[in-house]
Amino acid sequence: MSFRDYLSEAKAIFDRLYPDNKISEVDYEGPTIVVYTKDEELFSKRDDIARQIAQELRRRIAVRPDPSIMLDEDTAEKLIKEIIPDEAGLKDIYFEPDTGEAVIELDEPSIVTRNQEVMVNIKSRTKWSPRIVRAPPMYSRTVKEMREFLRSVKKERKEFLHNLGIKLTTPVMPGETWIRITALGGHREVGRSATLISTNNSKILVDCGMINVNDPDHPWEEAPYLYVPEIQPFSSLDAVILTHAHLDHSGLVPLLYKYGYDGPLYTTAPTRDLAALLQNDYIKVAHSEGHKISYESKHIREMLKHTIALKYNETTDITPDVRLTLYNAGHILGSASVHLHIGDGLYNIVLSGDQKFEKTWLFNPAVNRFPRVETFMIESTYAGRDDYTYTRSRAGEILTDVINRTFERGGSVLIPVFAVGRSQEVMLVIEDAVKRNIIPRTNVYLEGMIMEATAIHAAYPEYLNKDLREQIMVKRDNPFLSDIFKQVETKKQREEIMDSSESKIILATAGMMNGGPVLDYFKSMAPLREHSLVFVGYQADGTLGRYIQSGAKNVTLTDNGKPVKIDINMSVETAEGFSGHSNKAQLLNYIATMQPKPQRILVNHGDGDKCYEFSRLIRSKFGIDAISLKNLETVRVY
Amino acid sequence: MSFRDYLSEAKAIFDRLYPDNKISEVDYEGPTIVVYTKDEELFSKRDDIARQIAQELRRRIAVRPDPSIMLDEDTAEKLIKEIIPDEAGLKDIYFEPDTGEAVIELDEPSIVTRNQEVMVNIKSRTKWSPRIVRAPPMYSRTVKEMREFLRSVKKERKEFLHNLGIKLTTPVMPGETWIRITALGGHREVGRSATLISTNNSKILVDCGMINVNDPDHPWEEAPYLYVPEIQPFSSLDAVILTHAHLDHSGLVPLLYKYGYDGPLYTTAPTRDLAALLQNDYIKVAHSEGHKISYESKHIREMLKHTIALKYNETTDITPDVRLTLYNAGHILGSASVHLHIGDGLYNIVLSGDQKFEKTWLFNPAVNRFPRVETFMIESTYAGRDDYTYTRSRAGEILTDVINRTFERGGSVLIPVFAVGRSQEVMLVIEDAVKRNIIPRTNVYLEGMIMEATAIHAAYPEYLNKDLREQIMVKRDNPFLSDIFKQVETKKQREEIMDSSESKIILATAGMMNGGPVLDYFKSMAPLREHSLVFVGYQADGTLGRYIQSGAKNVTLTDNGKPVKIDINMSVETAEGFSGHSNKAQLLNYIATMQPKPQRILVNHGDGDKCYEFSRLIRSKFGIDAISLKNLETVRVY
Ligand SMILES: [Zn+2]
Ligand SMILES: [Zn+2]
Ligand SMILES: [Zn+2]
Ligand SMILES: [Zn+2]
Ligand SMILES: [Zn+2]
Repeated sequence: MSFRDYLSEAKAIFDRLYPDNKISEVDYEGPTIVVYTKDEELFSKRDDIARQIAQELRRRIAVRPDPSIMLDEDTAEKLIKEIIPDEAGLKDIYFEPDTGEAVIELDEPSIVTRNQEVMVNIKSRTKWSPRIVRAPPMYSRTVKEMREFLRSVKKERKEFLHNLGIKLTTPVMPGETWIRITALGGHREVGRSATLISTNNSKILVDCGMINVNDPDHPWEEAPYLYVPEIQPFSSLDAVILTHAHLDHSGLVPLLYKYGYDGPLYTTAPTRDLAALLQNDYIKVAHSEGHKISYESKHIREMLKHTIALKYNETTDITPDVRLTLYNAGHILGSASVHLHIGDGLYNIVLSGDQKFEKTWLFNPAVNRFPRVETFMIESTYAGRDDYTYTRSRAGEILTDVINRTFERGGSVLIPVFAVGRSQEVMLVIEDAVKRNIIPRTNVYLEGMIMEATAIHAAYPEYLNKDLREQIMVKRDNPFLSDIFKQVETKKQREEIMDSSESKIILATAGMMNGGPVLDYFKSMAPLREHSLVFVGYQADGTLGRYIQSGAKNVTLTDNGKPVKIDINMSVETAEGFSGHSNKAQLLNYIATMQPKPQRILVNHGDGDKCYEFSRLIRSKFGIDAISLKNLETVRVY
Repeated sequence: MSFRDYLSEAKAIFDRLYPDNKISEVDYEGPTIVVYTKDEELFSKRDDIARQIAQELRRRIAVRPDPSIMLDEDTAEKLIKEIIPDEAGLKDIYFEPDTGEAVIELDEPSIVTRNQEVMVNIKSRTKWSPRIVRAPPMYSRTVKEMREFLRSVKKERKEFLHNLGIKLTTPVMPGETWIRITALGGHREVGRSATLISTNNSKILVDCGMINVNDPDHPWEEAPYLYVPEIQPFSSLDAVILTHAHLDHSGLVPLLYKYGYDGPLYTTAPTRDLAALLQNDYIKVAHSEGHKISYESKHIREMLKHTIALKYNETTDITPDVRLTLYNAGHILGSASVHLHIGDGLYNIVLSGDQKFEKTWLFNPAVNRFPRVETFMIESTYAGRDDYTYTRSRAGEILTDVINRTFERGGSVLIPVFAVGRSQEVMLVIEDAVKRNIIPRTNVYLEGMIMEATAIHAAYPEYLNKDLREQIMVKRDNPFLSDIFKQVETKKQREEIMDSSESKIILATAGMMNGGPVLDYFKSMAPLREHSLVFVGYQADGTLGRYIQSGAKNVTLTDNGKPVKIDINMSVETAEGFSGHSNKAQLLNYIATMQPKPQRILVNHGDGDKCYEFSRLIRSKFGIDAISLKNLETVRVY
């Protein structure tokens, strides 16, 4: 069926099921057929009709009040404030232009959700659909600004989604069917992840990251191979999917928009927010360090304008022959494994992305059960012979042990962290250890964007594991709000912290020590034996972190543009097991318990020989055809 | 160095070595620096200077008389006719605009070549460089028309070659170096050969063939995957190389020119001529059968206009980072293996193309010694378990045996052949057998373009093996001129031949019986037990030839648009060993004796599992990394 056929078919079914439907418009918004009606009953109470039509058409349907009968946002906000009972603790109201929803943040949401009368009252009087959510326990500037930004580009988004809807219903061209996977970056290496899935009908890019090497001799190594004809021009891409916010996956997505891509970015809402945060930080830092910057913040905004946020386990048409479902990958907030269903029952590809197959303090383990999967792509960051083997709880023990030993000799602990993921885990471990008297009560200074990243976690409780979600939302015992955590705001504060003789813990970015405030602390702490530097995250080849971790006795850094030699006398330790990546046993366990078993496995995201060696191990252990592509190689899977 | 740098450097060396050089112009023509001079001495006698400069610059140099001092072609022709002694037997004179040569065809070339005075006389009086060649023993319309055509597009060619020269001297872009091979057709199958070699700087296509299936349900299977982004737009290609004239390699080269390619085609002169012949025949036959034709003869002419003919073993820059050398592949007239030297000493790829590693009645065995080779691509047409194992001489015995048995029972022998290659071999075997009284003297009727193809062989004696060349050119005992061979010119003749009761041999195209005059003979001969059908060439999957060869008892053909069921009672035989392809033992022997040994082997051009199985055999037998790509796959070799 074509675009128009779907719309008139939808209208016809409404006419049959609910003749007096007062429908004013039927249109596409991305993959969803949106029906506008002036009949209050239809949009406020008859979800059953929309569900039935969605099933018949195999398309998503949303029924919304006709804008002409809706209250303007300001009047609606006033009215809602009157309707909500005081004891519910109203914190915020904001409007979702994409969905016609009024999101109402309450301290006690159950007071309203238990009371259907309040809900119906709001809907019938404002014509906005109320969505009641618990007010987040922390304030996130990022989340707030994102909402405002999306509201400001409401009109452009509506047009974009309309055009996308037309594209999505274009019939598939007849002809031979084939499916190819092209490695554009992050294969047989860690960094600049980019994988192209092409079919005879569609071109889909999964991730578009960067390697954060600041090597002027090899600038081309920072980007995936984006200049090859398979992906040029970018306007030939039909869809881009982002697995998670880390810059080695998200870093160059805005570049696609700068150079002509104008289509959708599919990802989770938290990944959207975190990616924008990290990308904006990247260009700020690069600018301040005088590095060449390949895009500007307006290109990040362009990306956000085109982002379609999906929930885990929600299936969406992304091209006429491909359906996408995102699954929890357990790696960082909002991280997803990508399931692509190609053709009608023809073929299925899962790209698990960066993943953790173990329950962590923050997340549930990665999902490894899918409706179907023929080709499966798995990372191998820690699949090497000598990589860490510890579990999460052992990692916590190691960290508290280092803290205790350091404090006993009067020193402080410096922990380089990525703002996102590792910092929150380390915060949880420290807070818990203090509470249980395993380590002394201490100040934990947070540098860079750690606090803001933490607030984003709190804004998306449905992406956290159940225990933490309940602790934050239900028990009102939010560990992130403990007063041991101190945000460092100014340079002066930082200097005072460095000068003070108290034993303390400092969490500072960047995680691989290639820039950021961690270097300031390191310069002052490194020469003194009493201090400790603890690595809790992956240190890539070629980074300062990796160099120090592997036993360097001194390093030369720049201070106000001049080279300074720094002797390293502080204790350098590694708390293995904090990683957001599965270790080798976990990767193997993922495959062993995976359902269904894939016919073919592609191994990526590993340094040196890890991809290749792990593909051999999979072959011999499971008898599954496994290979590891080199960047620039293409394999045909169907 | 840039384009202008090379030219001024060339001029400077001339000035140093030969100050009074009277040079009027220095320019590029394709890969050659052409120097025009008014000094007769310089262009007629001082080849040493050109050679020295070529060595210093590592560029090809040609010194030509300034056009203003050259005689016009008509006057020059008259003058040359006067100068050449009568006893030399002047047959033809034609002028090569590309090279400034006057080609003089003589029955007794040695009379002139032994006489330097005549040569110098011609050069100094006409200012054309005389090139003395033996007059071909047969008249080829194709070769003659080709010369005329190339002369008619002289000006366009000069401009094209000039622009190509500029492109060839463009400096290589800095950046990471990589080399990829993409399978676009003819991998894990026979037909539609097309392989793309891309480097960070160049895009080179080797072959662009078709599968001659006439299946309206799967029209896309006729072409390689030419619509994928790796090769789109065609104008992004830097060079196209053609290994040989068979349509499964050459058939869609004109399509490239139709859809925007405007660059050079590198191949041998006989391949150029044969390809044009076969392509023109293809569109004629397709047209007469009412098939859709994807290009017209003007696109073949466009191809010819852009063809740069190379000799075997001659090295040419084809892009700023790639040099090409063609080597004899022993398969058909002019067939070549492709040697690509990439970067300066960086990497070497050999694509052996269709090849025969055995001396045949026509050609020397394929060359398997190269200056260097890291990646090697080999065909596997007959690499299967059950494929033929016979040598050429055994094949001849089988054929003469079938002829004798058929003639004894009063029947005739029908041999479906490709016009090019197999027919000439079969003619040689039959002529030799008649001469030596192994078979009775008989008429051998030649249908289709066989005679013309044979004449083209005679026009390029330097591409034949030494024995045949001498037999044709020196001993004056040209087997192709034997009066047993009768060209069939008209439909009436054909009918008379079919009606006559004499025992005879008929060689008719098409070689796989998918069209052509062979079908007319087959329809009339098939029901009668006394006749024989002898396959001497490869019968691809899905062709009528393969169907009959594998034992069909009857077939349904169309006669004037109506279906007719034909019972097959004639004897169906296969004379194995006539193939222009190496058998398995020959392929293995090629690799075993290859120098140097490649690091990696890619297997292509084989039906069913042959490519895959042969790659496994190579791995186990030689310990060389061997794989077979699927169409649409890309491997990175550097
Ligand atoms: Zn990650
Ligand atoms: Zn990653
Ligand atoms: Zn061939
Ligand atoms: Zn072939
Ligand atoms: Zn042209």
